[in-house]
Amino acid sequence: MKGRFLVLEGIDGCGKTTQLRQLAEWLPDSGLMPEGATLHLTREPGGTPLGRALRELLLHPPDEAAPCPEAELLMYAADRAQHVQRRILPALACGDWVLSDRFSGSTLAYQGDGRGLDRALILALERIATAGLVPDVTLWLDLSLEASMARREERAEDRIEAEGQAFLARVADGFRQLAAERGWVGIPAALSPKEVHQAIRLALEGHAALRRR
Amino acid sequence: MKGRFLVLEGIDGCGKTTQLRQLAEWLPDSGLMPEGATLHLTREPGGTPLGRALRELLLHPPDEAAPCPEAELLMYAADRAQHVQRRILPALACGDWVLSDRFSGSTLAYQGDGRGLDRALILALERIATAGLVPDVTLWLDLSLEASMARREERAEDRIEAEGQAFLARVADGFRQLAAERGWVGIPAALSPKEVHQAIRLALEGHAALRRR
Repeated sequence: MKGRFLVLEGIDGCGKTTQLRQLAEWLPDSGLMPEGATLHLTREPGGTPLGRALRELLLHPPDEAAPCPEAELLMYAADRAQHVQRRILPALACGDWVLSDRFSGSTLAYQGDGRGLDRALILALERIATAGLVPDVTLWLDLSLEASMARREERAEDRIEAEGQAFLARVADGFRQLAAERGWVGIPAALSPKEVHQAIRLALEGHAALRRR
Repeated sequence: MKGRFLVLEGIDGCGKTTQLRQLAEWLPDSGLMPEGATLHLTREPGGTPLGRALRELLLHPPDEAAPCPEAELLMYAADRAQHVQRRILPALACGDWVLSDRFSGSTLAYQGDGRGLDRALILALERIATAGLVPDVTLWLDLSLEASMARREERAEDRIEAEGQAFLARVADGFRQLAAERGWVGIPAALSPKEVHQAIRLALEGHAALRRR
């Protein structure tokens, strides 16, 4: 039996990291996964050894090596292609489950809406990089821009996060639109971490794509 | 005045490195370049600081980080986008000349003909990565597969060169076809290095795209 592919998306500061950790603890005992299936926790960029090298170049490039917008877009796509081919598809083929911190939706929101790169181009790259793989469930942690900015003040920023408020506002709008277009599950992320986790549990327990087939 | 963009293409062992060095010595004194113009010698992959990091990952990846064909293609495109935006276009805008060891033709030959990746896809990536930039002159060092194999026995191979003879045969055919389609200047590369250099000089001195405008 083919496994399931779950993705968490959302702007910086939405609580993805905390929620992923709790979700990864709960899922194997949730009764949703078939016996014997393993849960693979992964992320983009950086879900493979190649991807980790690309992630460093994308988020913490050495002096003068910061990628231009087109190179950035292509490097995210390269990271994704390797992730899909070398990690996600092989796991799904074994019947395992994969839970990823970000997937192609983030490229549409950050490079498309945020940087203003051509949407048709990004969609073409998505087809190449994903080889047609679509998540069974995408959970979208829906946080207002204001709440995100407040949370971000408390931690160190990478190159993308340092883009400023207007950029982040476009990204947030992009996620909202994508969630509607692609049928993502919206989770109100301004609640307490415990309440957000409960909302995620409920959403997954009731999700048709996760029923045993 | 806009500068000129010259490219050398050809299979491994065709003598590109030797010819580039001699060409870079001769060109500034050739009378072809306008006074005050600088010649920038560069290459793909690796013509920028970001590109050098990508080149290492492409040609000498650490264990388990070897890119899958799609990731490889996207990384070459990222290297090219950065090269065009950060190095080639700024130099041409100043009226300087740029001489590059490989450009987008190599991706069509190696990843298209060699690896069999979809040509329409590669052409789409070429448009993104080059931003429409087309070399003023592409010199193609035309060497038979047999001569190339013989020369290659004498030196260490990178990951792409280690692909074997059938791969290299497809690449060689690909270059031949591209040269015809794109109006490249074919240079018989089995001659002595000195004779090849002379042939290149003659070709450039007579080339309409290099006349002063």
